[in-house]
Amino acid sequence: MIGRVRLAEGAVDRALGATPGERDRRARIAWARLAEAVDKDVQALVAEHGPQAALLRLPDLPALLTRVERRLADLDIDRDLEIAHRLGAHILVPGDDAWPTGVDGLAAPPHCLWARGSEPLSRLATRSVAVVGSRAATAYGESVAADISTGLVDARFTIVSGAAYGIDGAAHRAALAADGRTVAVLACGIDRPYPRAHDRLLAAIAGSGAVVSESPPGWAPLRSRFLSRNRLIAALSDGVLVVEAGMRSGTHNTVGWANALHRPVAAVPGPVTSMSSAGCHQLIRDNEATLVTDAAEAAELFGDLGADLAQPTLFEGPDAQLSPADRAVLSALPVRAPVGAERIAVTVAASVPATMSALGRLQLVGLAERTSSGLWKRASDR
Amino acid sequence: MIGRVRLAEGAVDRALGATPGERDRRARIAWARLAEAVDKDVQALVAEHGPQAALLRLPDLPALLTRVERRLADLDIDRDLEIAHRLGAHILVPGDDAWPTGVDGLAAPPHCLWARGSEPLSRLATRSVAVVGSRAATAYGESVAADISTGLVDARFTIVSGAAYGIDGAAHRAALAADGRTVAVLACGIDRPYPRAHDRLLAAIAGSGAVVSESPPGWAPLRSRFLSRNRLIAALSDGVLVVEAGMRSGTHNTVGWANALHRPVAAVPGPVTSMSSAGCHQLIRDNEATLVTDAAEAAELFGDLGADLAQPTLFEGPDAQLSPADRAVLSALPVRAPVGAERIAVTVAASVPATMSALGRLQLVGLAERTSSGLWKRASDR
Repeated sequence: MIGRVRLAEGAVDRALGATPGERDRRARIAWARLAEAVDKDVQALVAEHGPQAALLRLPDLPALLTRVERRLADLDIDRDLEIAHRLGAHILVPGDDAWPTGVDGLAAPPHCLWARGSEPLSRLATRSVAVVGSRAATAYGESVAADISTGLVDARFTIVSGAAYGIDGAAHRAALAADGRTVAVLACGIDRPYPRAHDRLLAAIAGSGAVVSESPPGWAPLRSRFLSRNRLIAALSDGVLVVEAGMRSGTHNTVGWANALHRPVAAVPGPVTSMSSAGCHQLIRDNEATLVTDAAEAAELFGDLGADLAQPTLFEGPDAQLSPADRAVLSALPVRAPVGAERIAVTVAASVPATMSALGRLQLVGLAERTSSGLWKRASDR
Repeated sequence: MIGRVRLAEGAVDRALGATPGERDRRARIAWARLAEAVDKDVQALVAEHGPQAALLRLPDLPALLTRVERRLADLDIDRDLEIAHRLGAHILVPGDDAWPTGVDGLAAPPHCLWARGSEPLSRLATRSVAVVGSRAATAYGESVAADISTGLVDARFTIVSGAAYGIDGAAHRAALAADGRTVAVLACGIDRPYPRAHDRLLAAIAGSGAVVSESPPGWAPLRSRFLSRNRLIAALSDGVLVVEAGMRSGTHNTVGWANALHRPVAAVPGPVTSMSSAGCHQLIRDNEATLVTDAAEAAELFGDLGADLAQPTLFEGPDAQLSPADRAVLSALPVRAPVGAERIAVTVAASVPATMSALGRLQLVGLAERTSSGLWKRASDR
């Protein structure tokens, strides 16, 4: 025990022996090295005490200490800062201008983010769609992913994806070809091109957007890291578009994170004879995703509600002939205290995506109002 | 005027100069010859006075009389009965055992139905799905229409369609190939094979199911008659399945009739790059149709609610973990006086198809009860 505690204290002192202003940042860099991003114990400890105090409590937590002991011994934050410098990368922490606040809504937010790129991640994530799907995509899937990604870039969306083979690669490439911005979120350190064959693609992505990871340099793409990586893809986007997915595709994991974050989800249909589209069809049947067939429909779903409507002509006049569904949403809107779209969705027993497009239509015809914090109420002039 | 009235009276006497018991049937056969099925004035007149008295009032209605005058002069009901005999056809009227009561729900029910076939139309229509779509179908559409029709036949459904090229023909042929029952509803007289190239197909359909029309023999397939024919396809089926449809396909007219009759509508997705699937995708996006990918999902939607569930394993245990949507439907179910599914759909602001499958699930787990008249309430044992 004693030895252990000394080792810990020694390490912690080395870790935080910096100017006071840097101690929080360095503590976060330390935690990213010490534990897997979604380690429940560490998340609870850091959530309760903050990263610095959490580090200082380690000696009193033998079980956790045993788990992180070896990594603690190797901990060298100055080396990490050097590595970042050498990679031309930034290590982002909450409070930085470039920190994407969308990830703060996660139950297990990243301790820090390693980002290699040309633009602040916060700006890249501001108007963004995650385009994801099978690695074993069909030619149909890849070409649709490319078409829709190109259209979304033309509508000034950033394309977020996972840099994998298949749909991910097609989406990134289309965004680059359209001189758009694209973000690759990796399950390994940003110093490792994964998959290998995408090393030049990843370099190009860093050149016009960003390559991001919560795993420190050197870390390998373990399966568990792909699952936690998927929550970042969802959290860094305004919504998720699934182009092709089998019934057991990892894409469903990303969709699950998007639902948990109340981000809209869309799915592109395909031939019912293609197993690569079976997952998309199931998501639509289960009301977990809205069917979209092109970039305009995707922009309507993911864009600034109301501003990106695919067919504005459909909703003219102040008291437009509302559909029963829209009327239900209108009647569920509070007159005074605004509420979130997901609350309204529960009230009217509709999916969040459907409710959000209904809100967009109601806003467009002046019946609903959106607060600066993104909540909804009836337009006050009525 | 005088002459006209005499002519009318003469014709009416000839028309109804039969044994009393036959007068109503003959009056309906007469109306089928005198006016287009959906003629608003005639429908109103017959609805108010019944077919016989309506005929006798003709002389007092100069405007209408002028419209039907020529046909009235040619009226010869005995000849129609001869024609029916020669064609091996029946002329069905309400009250006949073979009369399909589903059409009674129409705003403009047919005066009578000419049916050539091997089985009573009422039985053929009892467990039936309309499989419809573009005449200009793709190979994909025709093969999916065939696969799903075969599966529905195996699930003991009759396949109803319009005998047109493309999806209609593929559905009829698949039903015949599977030794199933199929019904062709024509926009022209049943003596005219339309399209010509389908004459042998129509003969085979009559051999194992029925060829039906409300247009008397000799009448041509006018565009207006296709539109009124579509309402019969919807009314003779428990629901409509759209396999391929362009954005302006006549199929949308059939879907409109199905919605008016509160029959569930399903649509099969396809490549978003195929204009032949654009109409299906729009129906799904507009919540006018449920996405289905195979016969099992179609049977779940159109079959006896609860009995034909595609994945019963999903809903085990009495207090199954209900989805928010199912919970909303459950809470909308009256404890005492049962209501129709469409009423519940309005209450929970969901589509009728979605509400009906929710009711099916609730029935299966013993939370909902369906009355003999097809209305719904909470299961009484709770």
